[in-house]
Order: sequence, then C-alpha cells, then structure tokens
Amino acid sequence: MTQNLMEKTPVTLLGLGAMGTALARAWLAAGHPLTVWNRTPARAAALAAEGATVADSVAEAVAANSLVVVCLLDDASVAEVLDGTDLAGRDLVNLTTGTPEQARARAGWADGLGARYLDGGIMAVPPMIGVPQSGGYVLYSGSQDVFERHRETLGVPAGTTYVGANAGFAALYDVALLSAMYGMFAGAAHAFALIRTEDIDPAGFAPLLAGWLTAMAPSVHQTADQLRSGDYTRNVVSDLAMQVAGTPTFLETARQQGVSPELLTPYFELMRRRLTEGSGKEDLTGVVDLLLR
Amino acid sequence: MTQNLMEKTPVTLLGLGAMGTALARAWLAAGHPLTVWNRTPARAAALAAEGATVADSVAEAVAANSLVVVCLLDDASVAEVLDGTDLAGRDLVNLTTGTPEQARARAGWADGLGARYLDGGIMAVPPMIGVPQSGGYVLYSGSQDVFERHRETLGVPAGTTYVGANAGFAALYDVALLSAMYGMFAGAAHAFALIRTEDIDPAGFAPLLAGWLTAMAPSVHQTADQLRSGDYTRNVVSDLAMQVAGTPTFLETARQQGVSPELLTPYFELMRRRLTEGSGKEDLTGVVDLLLR
Repeated sequence: MTQNLMEKTPVTLLGLGAMGTALARAWLAAGHPLTVWNRTPARAAALAAEGATVADSVAEAVAANSLVVVCLLDDASVAEVLDGTDLAGRDLVNLTTGTPEQARARAGWADGLGARYLDGGIMAVPPMIGVPQSGGYVLYSGSQDVFERHRETLGVPAGTTYVGANAGFAALYDVALLSAMYGMFAGAAHAFALIRTEDIDPAGFAPLLAGWLTAMAPSVHQTADQLRSGDYTRNVVSDLAMQVAGTPTFLETARQQGVSPELLTPYFELMRRRLTEGSGKEDLTGVVDLLLR
Repeated sequence: MTQNLMEKTPVTLLGLGAMGTALARAWLAAGHPLTVWNRTPARAAALAAEGATVADSVAEAVAANSLVVVCLLDDASVAEVLDGTDLAGRDLVNLTTGTPEQARARAGWADGLGARYLDGGIMAVPPMIGVPQSGGYVLYSGSQDVFERHRETLGVPAGTTYVGANAGFAALYDVALLSAMYGMFAGAAHAFALIRTEDIDPAGFAPLLAGWLTAMAPSVHQTADQLRSGDYTRNVVSDLAMQVAGTPTFLETARQQGVSPELLTPYFELMRRRLTEGSGKEDLTGVVDLLLR
C-alpha cells in the first residue's frame, strides 16, 4: 500500500492459536505484509480485518512468501499440515513446541525438501509478544543463514537468541529453562502451602518470596562455573554436609504444619546420596551428575 | 572507650560458629560493645583481639547486657547452653535455626523465666552479613517491643523484617523461603543435566537460566492473589489443561537426553491430579491445596 510497507519482509504464518495470533498481530502492527493460514478459518478472518492476507490453502500460503513461519500445536501437526507442500527454496522457521529429537528430525526432513530450516523455542506467553519490555524472547537454532537474514523480522514479536547450528538446541534450551521454572513453581507451591496453615496473608508473603528467589537465581552462575571446572568445592559457602544436616528442619516443619513434603524429598534424597559418596565439602552441584546416571 | 562507642547498645552474643562470628564482627565494626561466649574458647579469643569482651561463662555473658543474642547449632544446643541461666529481665533474641514449633516452645520457656523473646530466621549466608548491599536480612517474630527497642542494633548485621507476634512465624517464613529456593535449585539441576548431555557451555547457558528464573519469580504475586481470592482462574494465561498437555514434551526430552525425570515428576503428578479434579481452566495454584490434604 505504501512505500514503507513494501520495504518490510513479507511473512507467511501457518497456525493461529493464541501464540500464532499474537505473532501475527505483532508483524501486522510493525507493517509486515502477512499471509496467514489456519485450519479453522474463523481465526484468520479476524486478522484479515487487521490487514492480513488469508490464504485458502497451505500450498497457497507457502507459495506466497519465501519466509514461512509455522506455529502449530505439536510436531505431528507440522507433519500433517505441510505434508506434500512444495517447500523448495523456502526459509522455514518452526516455532512449534517439541523435543530436541523432533526438531532435529524436522530439520533433516526440511533439508530433503530443499528448504532451509530454523527451529525456535518461544520463551514467552502470548501477552508478552510484541511487548519489548516484557522480557520474552525466542531461542533459535539450526540454519544461521536463515537467522541472520531474517533477524530483524524475527525480532519484531520478541527478542531473539541464536543458540547453535544443531537444530535441536533451541528445543533443548527451551525445555531446560521451562523445567527449571517448574522446579521453582514446585518450591513456591510448598512455601505457600506452609504459610496457608497459619493466618498469614499470601500477598504479604509473596514479595519476600519473589525477592528471595530473585536473590538466589544468580547462584546458577556458580553452578555453571563448577560444572565447567569439574571442581564442585570451588567458592562453596554452605557445603553439602551442612545443607544435608539442615534438611530435617524442613521436613519436620512440613510435618508440623501438615504439609506433604513430596515436592522437597526427591531433591533432598539426591543431596543425601551425593553426600554418602563422600562429597560433603562440595556445593550442591553434584546432584546434576546423579541425574545423568 | 569513647563517647561514641558508649552510645551504642551493648550486645551479648552466645555462639561463634561461622554465622555468629560474622554477626560479632558486624557489631564490633559498628562500634557496639560486645560480650561473647563460645563453647570452644579459641573462636572467642580471635574476636577479643578485635575488641570483644570474652565471658568465662554463659552466666557471666548473660549478666553483662540486657540484649542477649543466641546463635547456636540447633534448639537442643540453646536448651543446653541456657539451662539454669538467670534470664529475668533479658531481651532474648534467638537466631538459632529451628522449626516453628521449637520457636514457639522456646518463647513460652523464655516467658516462664521472665525474659522477653524474639525469634529470628537469618535469610543470608555468613559472607552476606555486614554487607548492606548483599540483600541478606533477618526475619523476626515474637515480642514486638524487643524488636522495636533494638531495631537499630539488630539492623547492623543485616536488614530486618518483623513478621508477627507469633514466635513461630520467623522460622516458618524462613523454612518456606528456603524450601522454595531448594525447589528452584532442583529445577536448575534438571536444566543443567539436560544441557550437559550436549556440547553446550554451562557458563553460556547460565545467564539465560538466571534471567528466566528472575523473569518468572514475580509470578508468585499472581499465585498469592489467587490464593487470597480463592479464584484460581483469575488472570490465567496458560491454563492447567494446556500446561498438563505440555508435560510429555518435558518428560520425553529428559528420556531422549538420558536425564532422570525424578525432580520434575512429583510436580507434574500433582498438576495432573488437580486437572482430573476438573480444574483445567485454573492456574497452577491448586497444587498448593493438594499439598495440604
């Protein structure tokens, strides 16, 4: 329509779930010509009113632009939706959530069809998309060429972080970060359960909890340093022997307050196992090794 | 010795482990007259050179000042060390780690001896003591009079937060916050184990991990808001049904990479149990309730 608009890289987007729709709106708002396709046409129709071109078929959507972004339910949906589609010469960016193995297999499949493949793991929920200050970003791995060529376009909905040529790495980092988050949520659930047993306002406790978790999160740098060096006794403040000695207070408090310890015990058990291996002077880092056996 | 020095509240400190010694040095550095006692005299001797008065007995130490701070190994040590000591009229501040029940029992015991009792839970490791910018602080509960009267003196080694007249609350908050931290550490251990299976530098991954945990920590405010209102569907972004649907990707990734899922499964199992109770539209908050059954 205008000169400005034509300068922006046109994007094809397959999949208009909550995340796909958020991505679409971010690109439209930034003036990127956008062609969309969705299995359920109603969602595409809403975006048409905002300037998107609605393709009647996957083939038509893929033919429209060389940059094709896919954001579907799972890897099986990707296989099904793109089955038989001519992807030759396309830059295929797959933001569908999956495992590292699925991403690597999908990269090989795309290569066989003559497409360049970039896998993405979205570290954001839909409301964070198109909001630069939200802190949300997308991890990318696979074709560095595709990443560099479309860096600006990919950076419109959220920040971008390229983590390697191995197509499975974005999914691996994604799963690793979200797994760590679930661990933190599990710990927070136990903490809230403890204070729920007393007349304590959770909203008064939450700032202390958020503050403490935020203060302790940077300790992962020390864990990384120890893993890298192989010396788990490096810069230890509270050693494993001391921390294991403290665990009865946590379990006894849970018992006294009537809270199930089931979210704490597996980690305490690994701490104890590592201690019995003669690692009392170490940090907690040895638990990582126990998970790999 | 000088006018300035005499203006500072004199403190008696029983227990010179790593934490007690750090506390002692902070008070000495700030010019508080300090009387110390420790079971092993060698540790006290080192502090004498820095200006501390070393008491020959617990009774002498307690008699020296009306503010008596105790920082021992555990509650049993407190009972043993103070057994038979005249605590009448003393402001007893107990920074020994213990359970809420121990703190409440200790408060009753102190009351019976004519002492005012304040319990404390130290949210810091020794290197953070006396370093205002470290973010370390001490949770206090019990006698608000004692807290207010000695607020300035107690604020010398670390920040102070008073959490209620119930003497057990400082220990409860302390255990709750540290339990949440162990959950976060468990999640981080799983994350590091995942990336250790590939040629990925842990030190390159750590900033992403610290950043993601820090970005997600404030979600506890929403949990608190939901617990307070009783409406766990309030402001939900990714509902329980959607999150449970995502768990196979986490477990399958762990399996593919050869990482034990034992630190993730207990939380996923509670998510699944809550979902089967018909709570698919809720946030993850219902897990808290399951821990209380």
